[in-house]
Amino acid sequence: MQKYEGWEEFYSKPIEDKLDTFIKNGKIFDVIYAQQFERSYMEELFALADKVRVIAKTQQGMDFLGTILSDKKALLFFAQPSTRTFLSFQNACHTLGMKTSEIRDASTSSEVKGESPEDTIRTFSSYVDLIIIRHFNEGYAELASWTLNEHANRSVPVINGGSGKDQHPTQSLLDMYTFQRSFADIGGIDGKKIAMVGDLKRGRTVRSLCRLLSLYNDIELFFVSPPQLAMRNDILDFLSENGVKYTQTDDFEGVLQNADAVYSTRMQDEHDKNGESASVDYARFTLKESHLATMKEHAVILHPFPRRDEIEVAVDNNKRAAYWKQARNGMWVRIALILKLFGRDDVVHQSGLFKN
Amino acid sequence: MQKYEGWEEFYSKPIEDKLDTFIKNGKIFDVIYAQQFERSYMEELFALADKVRVIAKTQQGMDFLGTILSDKKALLFFAQPSTRTFLSFQNACHTLGMKTSEIRDASTSSEVKGESPEDTIRTFSSYVDLIIIRHFNEGYAELASWTLNEHANRSVPVINGGSGKDQHPTQSLLDMYTFQRSFADIGGIDGKKIAMVGDLKRGRTVRSLCRLLSLYNDIELFFVSPPQLAMRNDILDFLSENGVKYTQTDDFEGVLQNADAVYSTRMQDEHDKNGESASVDYARFTLKESHLATMKEHAVILHPFPRRDEIEVAVDNNKRAAYWKQARNGMWVRIALILKLFGRDDVVHQSGLFKN
Amino acid sequence: MQKYEGWEEFYSKPIEDKLDTFIKNGKIFDVIYAQQFERSYMEELFALADKVRVIAKTQQGMDFLGTILSDKKALLFFAQPSTRTFLSFQNACHTLGMKTSEIRDASTSSEVKGESPEDTIRTFSSYVDLIIIRHFNEGYAELASWTLNEHANRSVPVINGGSGKDQHPTQSLLDMYTFQRSFADIGGIDGKKIAMVGDLKRGRTVRSLCRLLSLYNDIELFFVSPPQLAMRNDILDFLSENGVKYTQTDDFEGVLQNADAVYSTRMQDEHDKNGESASVDYARFTLKESHLATMKEHAVILHPFPRRDEIEVAVDNNKRAAYWKQARNGMWVRIALILKLFGRDDVVHQSGLFKN
Repeated sequence: MQKYEGWEEFYSKPIEDKLDTFIKNGKIFDVIYAQQFERSYMEELFALADKVRVIAKTQQGMDFLGTILSDKKALLFFAQPSTRTFLSFQNACHTLGMKTSEIRDASTSSEVKGESPEDTIRTFSSYVDLIIIRHFNEGYAELASWTLNEHANRSVPVINGGSGKDQHPTQSLLDMYTFQRSFADIGGIDGKKIAMVGDLKRGRTVRSLCRLLSLYNDIELFFVSPPQLAMRNDILDFLSENGVKYTQTDDFEGVLQNADAVYSTRMQDEHDKNGESASVDYARFTLKESHLATMKEHAVILHPFPRRDEIEVAVDNNKRAAYWKQARNGMWVRIALILKLFGRDDVVHQSGLFKN
Repeated sequence: MQKYEGWEEFYSKPIEDKLDTFIKNGKIFDVIYAQQFERSYMEELFALADKVRVIAKTQQGMDFLGTILSDKKALLFFAQPSTRTFLSFQNACHTLGMKTSEIRDASTSSEVKGESPEDTIRTFSSYVDLIIIRHFNEGYAELASWTLNEHANRSVPVINGGSGKDQHPTQSLLDMYTFQRSFADIGGIDGKKIAMVGDLKRGRTVRSLCRLLSLYNDIELFFVSPPQLAMRNDILDFLSENGVKYTQTDDFEGVLQNADAVYSTRMQDEHDKNGESASVDYARFTLKESHLATMKEHAVILHPFPRRDEIEVAVDNNKRAAYWKQARNGMWVRIALILKLFGRDDVVHQSGLFKN
Repeated sequence: MQKYEGWEEFYSKPIEDKLDTFIKNGKIFDVIYAQQFERSYMEELFALADKVRVIAKTQQGMDFLGTILSDKKALLFFAQPSTRTFLSFQNACHTLGMKTSEIRDASTSSEVKGESPEDTIRTFSSYVDLIIIRHFNEGYAELASWTLNEHANRSVPVINGGSGKDQHPTQSLLDMYTFQRSFADIGGIDGKKIAMVGDLKRGRTVRSLCRLLSLYNDIELFFVSPPQLAMRNDILDFLSENGVKYTQTDDFEGVLQNADAVYSTRMQDEHDKNGESASVDYARFTLKESHLATMKEHAVILHPFPRRDEIEVAVDNNKRAAYWKQARNGMWVRIALILKLFGRDDVVHQSGLFKN
């Protein structure tokens, strides 16, 4: 198997130094890192998603949306199993009229035959207009983007649907979109107190979320976790450098009373090396029905799912529970993202179908 | 993994007591049990299917059908392998312009991560407008329907595409539709003598069929099986209570001469506990080319497929063989069913394209 | 499991004697063997593909193409893993507006239940209008075609997407299409010197290609391979009978200087019986960047992919490298083929959208 030259050098650069690579004609072309999103980009994206979901309420609206990218084809290359992200992306594509193909084997036949990942990606790009990748190898989506940008005559956009342990940028977008909608009537995200609860050490969603929240003003973060699973220093340092106040605590109930949002997460025990999760007392951080009365009136509860016992099912029907909306928000924000990648957002903005 | 409250109690009720749960605004919303179908519903359904298949004969007609549900998306969640039912449903959706997503793994990634089936189903329902389920667990489709009806803000219809050993309601519909079409010129299903042959003890299709045939007048049933695989008493009692005449026999050739329809089935040896099927003489019930001459002129032969040796291939080209039409009927009747679930049957009835 | 009668006899006939079986109303109906294609057929096909790719350059054009077969449904039955051929066919279908279903299991559930392949295929044909098959069993696609033509009331076309070791007719078409486009400005394929390099003994693409090249005038072939992997006598005899000049050699560098096209292939070691490939010195036949200067100005390099080390990545950006275009050509030529099978090629020819 032949390596393509230049990848190791590129990959080893700091993320900040390579964000330009994912931009074409002044616009985001590939979506690889959460760090690519500026506040203005997110605001445009969320406004677009808001319009799309209103248009989608009628049959006429859905049929209109289904014409916007009817000339485009997407490949969902999901080497790592994922039903949630897969379905969300696929139905986002379908809503816009895109045709989709799927490769969902852990190992493709070409890999078996000794093909390099670079050749595989270039081949895939021959048939479609967009590649959405989820892969167990860290950096795989970035490799795909780099290969097409550096080596292929016909480059198509790549979206990282989760690669390895660290990055899942569209998950961060849907989380932020859910915050934005939840706080729409109370001044938006600025100034909010947000608690992140659970396995903060290994949860990639909370890590990316910290970066995106830092783009807003006067955010205060509360990191609630067992001591073994505390947020890592790289993020803490990043927050300090960017002037974001944070508190580390294991006083779950105290935080609940003050938080505008609680972002609960499950134990990431698939990353255990020696079953170390077994000794952690995670039950202390379960959000119970009995907690609801102590929370602020307008507070919202999020969870990236899947859930185990972090939030009691009895909480689901409380108006503060935002996690089911959050799941559906994932589809809307991905629709908006794809529209922007293809520069077809204007088609929505100019549509007469939108009436709020 | 958290259970949702109330399921055990609901599930343990007699089927008859919970059929109302699957109705919304006076119409069938979820399709879980064959017992949901009344005769009038089936007659409407079959008339609709008849129209659709005529419309589908032209390119213009197919393109029209493809607009009726172009604003809707379906998920085929087939945890249990099935090519026949899967393809039939998927192409039914496609004929109506629905976009489809598939989850065909025995275990989804979310289950691996400790998610409850209730959460899984609610997540799925976030992205689509219809969920079609085939699952190895008895009651799974019903659990899905119950979860969405009882717990979700956004409920979408669920169709049971075969759950566990007992229920496969759309198979029964296509069987009934095939009877109806076969007997269209000779007075319909009423008054017909119908033989069911084979593994009647464990075959779910014959069991459901008995229930639906009981809605017609003056039906006479012949149960032809090895003694070890005879129809179970619950169905026999049901028939008696509903005044349906039946005969249990192993005189296959005698029955063939009198039957208006022969419904042949294969041995369900996947349900064996200790290989007990091996000792059964099933070959006695093979329908042979040589039998055809002894059958009534208008008699029809059905089989839910897959077939092993129950019907000789040489029978296929005889005009009495209805089983290949039966397979295709499955697609038409599922198209009609989906149209009715979404209340779009009027679009077909009002179309100028239908000319018989 | 019941065999259908007549297959063994049919299958044992020489290929030439059964080509008529795949023709209906004077046109190719099933695509099973590369031997079915005459030069005039290929020329029509390639002209059609040329038009389609121009039309596809605009959103309006793509939307137009997406209406041509919007009334048709295809099944991709890929029992043998294949990402390249699979994606190429699926996106060809999608470009034409066809809806697709996929069966990609090595063993379908029906096979598990004891169904014959003939019954499986007839069932599949109930739901769709086209079946594209890739299978590890030699002759499987032919069996499918034979079953539907001989036994089914409702026959649908079958395309062989690679069956067993010998046949992969659409790969040959895309190779020929790539030659045609490469030589468009220098007199076409006639009279060209074409080198085939690598595992000629076991590579099905080179074998089929020899047959199709023999339909052109004054072709000269160079077979460059390790002695253990030389082209087999059946093809050599065929070429002699058809007056095609060929040379067998292992002088790779000498051939490179004279060839108009180099068709490089990988070692087919999945067909090894006792690891015999390990002892072959394949590296001698690697096309290196340093070779480019010795090649003719207009020479082109093809490879059916996947590639290992047969062509250095550094060659990719040279204008002689045609193998990435070749991959994409596969989609265009399959679009053209499907259009011709359904007799919808006129829709393209009559479109006002085509301007070269």
